[in-house]
Amino acid sequence: MATEHDNAACATGKIRLYVEADLVAEAAAGLSPDQSHYLVNVMRLEHGAPIRLFNGRHGEWQAELTRAHKRSSIATVRTQTRPQDEVPDLQLWFAPVKRVRLDFLAQKATELGVAAICPVMTRRTNVSRVKDGRLRANVIEAAEQCGRLTVPDVYDATTLEKILVSSDRQVMFCDEGEGVSPARDALASATKGPWAVLIGPEGGFDAEERAMLRAHPSVVAVNLGPRIMRADTAAIAALTLWQAALGDW
Amino acid sequence: MATEHDNAACATGKIRLYVEADLVAEAAAGLSPDQSHYLVNVMRLEHGAPIRLFNGRHGEWQAELTRAHKRSSIATVRTQTRPQDEVPDLQLWFAPVKRVRLDFLAQKATELGVAAICPVMTRRTNVSRVKDGRLRANVIEAAEQCGRLTVPDVYDATTLEKILVSSDRQVMFCDEGEGVSPARDALASATKGPWAVLIGPEGGFDAEERAMLRAHPSVVAVNLGPRIMRADTAAIAALTLWQAALGDW
Repeated sequence: MATEHDNAACATGKIRLYVEADLVAEAAAGLSPDQSHYLVNVMRLEHGAPIRLFNGRHGEWQAELTRAHKRSSIATVRTQTRPQDEVPDLQLWFAPVKRVRLDFLAQKATELGVAAICPVMTRRTNVSRVKDGRLRANVIEAAEQCGRLTVPDVYDATTLEKILVSSDRQVMFCDEGEGVSPARDALASATKGPWAVLIGPEGGFDAEERAMLRAHPSVVAVNLGPRIMRADTAAIAALTLWQAALGDW
Repeated sequence: MATEHDNAACATGKIRLYVEADLVAEAAAGLSPDQSHYLVNVMRLEHGAPIRLFNGRHGEWQAELTRAHKRSSIATVRTQTRPQDEVPDLQLWFAPVKRVRLDFLAQKATELGVAAICPVMTRRTNVSRVKDGRLRANVIEAAEQCGRLTVPDVYDATTLEKILVSSDRQVMFCDEGEGVSPARDALASATKGPWAVLIGPEGGFDAEERAMLRAHPSVVAVNLGPRIMRADTAAIAALTLWQAALGDW
């Protein structure tokens, strides 16, 4: 749900909510307790107020608040405002960072149009556990705000070894080592298709991990310039370059 | 000063501090009360501990803590570890956002190698005042952490009209409107030289501002894809694409 954008959302009547329900004309979509609280208590919407709904399957719909209740509101679906679309098949594989930066990373990756995010444990990862629910809440909120019609999938945490073995997508690996092509050049000669951007932990991958990555046939090592970037900055930069070269920008 | 990287910095002996003093072999550099507190109280460094210093003019130097005092430490400069270098002549002009996002934006712009940042007031800017000192502290901390040898200049806040009149640099304007070239294409045909990336407030520029920008001969409007990005995300994406196309990546 929108938080910092509350005023803007209110002024323009463009509150967008993600729901699980099927969206067809005149359907009644039940809103969760959190959504109801947000609409009725925070945004002070009343019966008849317009909102927009999407569910990742049926596009975006104009709807009307037909039961304004602080715990169990209902919206009645009116007309479709946008047909369903898809984002490019790009995943973000990231070594989990601390909480606030993880929230931030999930939000930014959503804005940048990833199809899925997957926490990947590496040898230097300091975070032992990732709260899936929190990641999920972050990608939903960001999808609501950035106008997406899909919410990125949030996969269970796995290890670097496992994800490399089980995946057949191409992997853009941001490597701080010597002799690595600039990202722009590497992407200019890359082929479209399913991709993942892989971001290591603060402190980077260890030597064995880097050797494994460099030897993997689907991994493309890229360089992101002469300065040391934090993991979240590197992730945003890499996703940006991928979208500009191979995605929908 | 480093904060979240404390452990990593400590383990590797790679604490880097920005100082004002001239850096030459055997010079004594006085450290500020904040720096002294950080080294002695937080990092528990003792007499003889190695640190690195830079001042934006004389490269990076290995130094040694020769007075470990919690309010007024002194480091003695030993040998140069890197000669001075420069970042590309890229500025970030941004409509100020709320505090936490502003800290974040200043840090990220520094990691992404900007030479200067300048707050620009626009009609929809909700923030009336920018704390220069806070911006400055953020760019110094980020420069220390990301290995830069310069600290971005922080200019006084100005208005969009004034900065467009007084500057002769090319301006990359991230425009959500119709008929705007993708950033990658626009940058591919752009010429090197002094540039600025201009990022509007949440809610965007108003119609008159956009018309003024589009009519300005030095402004290049670019499109950053089909999703709505927050101002800070758009800034990072735009700086990334500029560095890849025209900068030092």
